[in-house]
Amino acid sequence: MSDYSIGVDLGGTNLRAAAIGRDGEMIEKISGRVQLSQGRDAVMADIAGAIQKLIGNMAGRKLAGVGIGVPGFILMSEGKIVGSNNLQAFEDFPMQQEMERLIGEKVILENDANPPARGEKASGAGRGGDDLVLMTLGTGIGGGIISGGRILHGYLGMAGEIGHITVASDGNPCGCGNRGCLEKHASATAIAAMGRLLLLGEGVTAEDVYYLAVQGNERALMIFEAVGEFLGIALAALVNIFNFPLYLLSGGPLPAWEFFAPAMMREVRRRSYTFREAKTRIEKATLGNEAGLYGAAYLPFQQAGA
Amino acid sequence: MSDYSIGVDLGGTNLRAAAIGRDGEMIEKISGRVQLSQGRDAVMADIAGAIQKLIGNMAGRKLAGVGIGVPGFILMSEGKIVGSNNLQAFEDFPMQQEMERLIGEKVILENDANPPARGEKASGAGRGGDDLVLMTLGTGIGGGIISGGRILHGYLGMAGEIGHITVASDGNPCGCGNRGCLEKHASATAIAAMGRLLLLGEGVTAEDVYYLAVQGNERALMIFEAVGEFLGIALAALVNIFNFPLYLLSGGPLPAWEFFAPAMMREVRRRSYTFREAKTRIEKATLGNEAGLYGAAYLPFQQAGA
Repeated sequence: MSDYSIGVDLGGTNLRAAAIGRDGEMIEKISGRVQLSQGRDAVMADIAGAIQKLIGNMAGRKLAGVGIGVPGFILMSEGKIVGSNNLQAFEDFPMQQEMERLIGEKVILENDANPPARGEKASGAGRGGDDLVLMTLGTGIGGGIISGGRILHGYLGMAGEIGHITVASDGNPCGCGNRGCLEKHASATAIAAMGRLLLLGEGVTAEDVYYLAVQGNERALMIFEAVGEFLGIALAALVNIFNFPLYLLSGGPLPAWEFFAPAMMREVRRRSYTFREAKTRIEKATLGNEAGLYGAAYLPFQQAGA
Repeated sequence: MSDYSIGVDLGGTNLRAAAIGRDGEMIEKISGRVQLSQGRDAVMADIAGAIQKLIGNMAGRKLAGVGIGVPGFILMSEGKIVGSNNLQAFEDFPMQQEMERLIGEKVILENDANPPARGEKASGAGRGGDDLVLMTLGTGIGGGIISGGRILHGYLGMAGEIGHITVASDGNPCGCGNRGCLEKHASATAIAAMGRLLLLGEGVTAEDVYYLAVQGNERALMIFEAVGEFLGIALAALVNIFNFPLYLLSGGPLPAWEFFAPAMMREVRRRSYTFREAKTRIEKATLGNEAGLYGAAYLPFQQAGA
């Protein structure tokens, strides 16, 4: 029986890896930067190095495998990223196979929205339940869906693309080819874009908009109200589709909850009969960044049947 | 081991019941009208009578149970319809319990969109697969979601309410409290409503609009194009959320497929990166009305562990 597993969270900016014991204990964690400017091979070498360092420190213990969460549309069966705004150099590259070759261990590639959902179920806001949706607000908006205790991967591993639900049929054009995708109207990127248009001009970040809202700036408050409405449209669709008891939100804009949540809840209530009839919780995720590492480490355990 | 099961399909207009053998054979079928004007108790007695007639003809065979598909928001755990446009007299009535008392057999109540999805999986267009969504276009729009081989019921049995996905954020008001629900823009009822506004005035049916489209009437064709676009917005969301290999449509407007499908497919293609990347079939269901009877009979078999 394997007694630890390695979870890796590869973002557009940060690379984190951790060895997690069967009991859920985080044994060791490594954090670094993703050096995209050095090219794909250098990033692959950095990931492999982090994994090998962890393996080296676990002498005598048996590894179940390595789970890597990556942003973008993933073909799990082929272990490939087929499309990613943040990791374009990895598109159509046989990443899983190459990483297995580099480290000599079994690797599983997964959309980076799924591991945090699994983490929240195992030890966060979703503990004790078998059905939840986690929506991650960041550069884009990701979704991890847990149904009957397991991630809903879809038949190619591309399920959970909540960020690309249409919330405004003629809305903002998206890199995916659609218009009015949720992530073009409610991600941290969208908040910054609205901030640039409505507030301070170039260089405005989502955080700037948040601090202006804290100070009572009306335009900043209005931006978060719009964000809440768009989140509410998507959440109402998810409640109507899944009738799950729990929907969680995580990510950078979460501190602005008090500014966007009232509009979000009002919109869900209005747009979902199920929400009004069935006790449904829409809440903040509680684990933060760590959830992705725990969740990525879990999949190898599961697949090892351990 | 129980060797047959009874499936009932209760609509706003028609009542059908059938005894189905373990091997999927339809042994006997009864069809009648739903006499809503006679009151709820009379309808209950009609259903019980149909079931008892079937049971009487199956002497010597063991019954697994009775599955009843009903339109509306169902609380499965309580065996109740909590909201229904077509069966308002049954709202908040303990229907499952009362029917069990009347017939002395185990009864399962389910949203009427689920049994046809199960039927299509067992012996229709979804045969051989474990993951599909069936969208039924009728008075409203219902949804049956099969994930990992089983209906996704949600925690109270209210999942699959695809008809209430928002496809136009400030669209047509819906009885559910929302605006711009899919079923307000793409059901048979919506087609008739557009027909009344754009074509012939009062009394126009969805079928009239269809026949005008067949004759090349431009407004009728435009109505179906709009229907296709709205269906496409909802289907793109479902493809993005589930990444299932198969999405089926059924119901009265299906003969108009040639008129609405081109706009629908164009819209899905434009709005779903997953659809463009992953082979995804959007097709007509093949079983018609019978699918609901087969599917309703299946649930008692499953729950009897047989």
